[in-house]
Amino acid sequence: MKLMIIKPTLLLDKQRALQNLKSMAEKAKKSHVRFRPHFKTHHSAQVGEWFREFGVNAITVSSVEMAMYFAQYGWKDITVAFPVNILEIYNINNLASSIQLNLLVESEETVAFLAKHLQASVDVWIKIDVGYHRTGITWNHLDEIASLAHQIDSSNKMIFKGLLTHSGHTYRAHSRAEVTTIYHETVRRLQAIKQRLTGEDDLNTQISIGDTPSCSIVDDFSRVNEIRPGNFVFYDIMQSNIGSCMEEDIAVAVACPVVAKHRERYEIVIYGGAVHLSKEFIIDKKGNRVFGYVAQLQEQSWGSMIHNTHVSALSQEHGIIKAESDFFNRVNIGDILVILPVHSCLTVNLLRKYLTMDGETIPTML
Amino acid sequence: MKLMIIKPTLLLDKQRALQNLKSMAEKAKKSHVRFRPHFKTHHSAQVGEWFREFGVNAITVSSVEMAMYFAQYGWKDITVAFPVNILEIYNINNLASSIQLNLLVESEETVAFLAKHLQASVDVWIKIDVGYHRTGITWNHLDEIASLAHQIDSSNKMIFKGLLTHSGHTYRAHSRAEVTTIYHETVRRLQAIKQRLTGEDDLNTQISIGDTPSCSIVDDFSRVNEIRPGNFVFYDIMQSNIGSCMEEDIAVAVACPVVAKHRERYEIVIYGGAVHLSKEFIIDKKGNRVFGYVAQLQEQSWGSMIHNTHVSALSQEHGIIKAESDFFNRVNIGDILVILPVHSCLTVNLLRKYLTMDGETIPTML
Repeated sequence: MKLMIIKPTLLLDKQRALQNLKSMAEKAKKSHVRFRPHFKTHHSAQVGEWFREFGVNAITVSSVEMAMYFAQYGWKDITVAFPVNILEIYNINNLASSIQLNLLVESEETVAFLAKHLQASVDVWIKIDVGYHRTGITWNHLDEIASLAHQIDSSNKMIFKGLLTHSGHTYRAHSRAEVTTIYHETVRRLQAIKQRLTGEDDLNTQISIGDTPSCSIVDDFSRVNEIRPGNFVFYDIMQSNIGSCMEEDIAVAVACPVVAKHRERYEIVIYGGAVHLSKEFIIDKKGNRVFGYVAQLQEQSWGSMIHNTHVSALSQEHGIIKAESDFFNRVNIGDILVILPVHSCLTVNLLRKYLTMDGETIPTML
Repeated sequence: MKLMIIKPTLLLDKQRALQNLKSMAEKAKKSHVRFRPHFKTHHSAQVGEWFREFGVNAITVSSVEMAMYFAQYGWKDITVAFPVNILEIYNINNLASSIQLNLLVESEETVAFLAKHLQASVDVWIKIDVGYHRTGITWNHLDEIASLAHQIDSSNKMIFKGLLTHSGHTYRAHSRAEVTTIYHETVRRLQAIKQRLTGEDDLNTQISIGDTPSCSIVDDFSRVNEIRPGNFVFYDIMQSNIGSCMEEDIAVAVACPVVAKHRERYEIVIYGGAVHLSKEFIIDKKGNRVFGYVAQLQEQSWGSMIHNTHVSALSQEHGIIKAESDFFNRVNIGDILVILPVHSCLTVNLLRKYLTMDGETIPTML
């Protein structure tokens, strides 16, 4: 259908999203791992329903607030994949008393706080740093990990569940091979901890991994128990750049009106800036900062990315497209261009509702 | 008072904002220029009311949507400082029929469209590019500018108002002197156009400038008619870095809970990421990307920035602080730290409501 678009609008190609979802669900099934998708990418109860059709009943979120939202919509098994924020203990207790809540810890202080203040039972994962160095206990600090696991295990409010990691360094990888190497190193490192905990420490230990590049590129998850990808449902430029997806798998994009053209430098100005796309960028092979690629709107979706054309700068509401000359000449003021986002999670967070290619508006919690 | 904060929260120090507002209003008055502040920084009808007490009755916004919001709250003279998006003609006509609406154009196509479709009279500014190269007609294309001015003037729905620019290149300046140089070059270039239009073309021509660095650093606006700064009401790290303000003028900050600490690299992990602060960064003197500076919460405001300590990385909800060792040792899990934002406009856009130091919640249009 012909969509009525007059300002920056988040488009969702539902068929592509369902296809991405189907591929990942089937792969998880084949590997016999629990598929616990991260819902922070889509933030939407309605999009969440699509996952149920693929057998999903356990999910991941990144905040207590998000857990409360999805719990309201009937999700009964939720992992908050963020180090416990002890200031939210009141809401954590509310959730723990009504659903299967799973938490992430990485320090003695937090575990001691939970042991004292939890009012209902939760499952607890230890966050492990396998090389990303954002947060978590470094994978080879075996004594520290074992000590924390025992501290958890000794509380009657916490059940030690296992080791959880986010190998976010795959986002910096430049090839599928590099992602695969990181994945295998991740699993080896987690298995080394597991061996210690199940052997010497006699603790049941599961393994949970999460990054979309690994989950997309690796085929066999046989040595892990759970995968938690999120971004894969929509993908984006960053993922297609890594090799996690093909360009035609990207399921969200931002429709933006053209408001000006500058022939002397082949630049097109769009209504679509940092408050719509986010300031996330990739560096292309020529060293340019790329804030998005450009495509043309079609009846049921959008076309291929335009060659030698990219969003080169963003201010609050302005986007600047550096365009190839033929394309520049074809575009007119008042046209709608489609921008493929660099990081779909941030773009969804900014635009806060979807317009499907059938003209349906889908709200989010945002 | 003691604020109850459990998750990333946008703090507003109202006294600082009022002081910033007072300084700018007084300076505009002294120079006898129209003070038409940009409201895209605060996005809030309630904050907007503070401006009225300083004699403001004309404002700037960056979208038709924002104009509609502030028109609802009684603002009667609004400039949409963004090239007209012709797809929004329906809302433009609604506004034009109820308030003094002022539009920005830079192309023949847009002016022709407006001449045909406008249903009520508007004032029209020509957007001039004086060196920023984002958008606008290049300042020395005098014939093109004159031709557009006549095209506007020949329509009975449009009144040619003058030349408007945003010298956004001052945001890349590294000193107050550099900003002053850009300001004087800006005014010279606009005056050259004005001379042509008032002389040869016999058109009444006003001059409107807008960037916060110029408006903050320059003292005498005698050769312009209007100033449109926005960011100055809150300022931020980018502005203090340029020299537009002192650190203690920054009036908004994000309170973030501490969730983890990593002693081996003196890093503190906060609940506060790209969805709270935005991915905007500056490069410091050592070449580090800085996504914010860190201060401690106080009863009525927040303290000075902590030495040798900055937000070094952001993912969706995580922020990483590289901390100086003494500070690192003083901070505990569960503490609240205050992050001074790099670009307050984007941070406000993400967090969407303020908490004043008196505990009052102030909503925005977002």
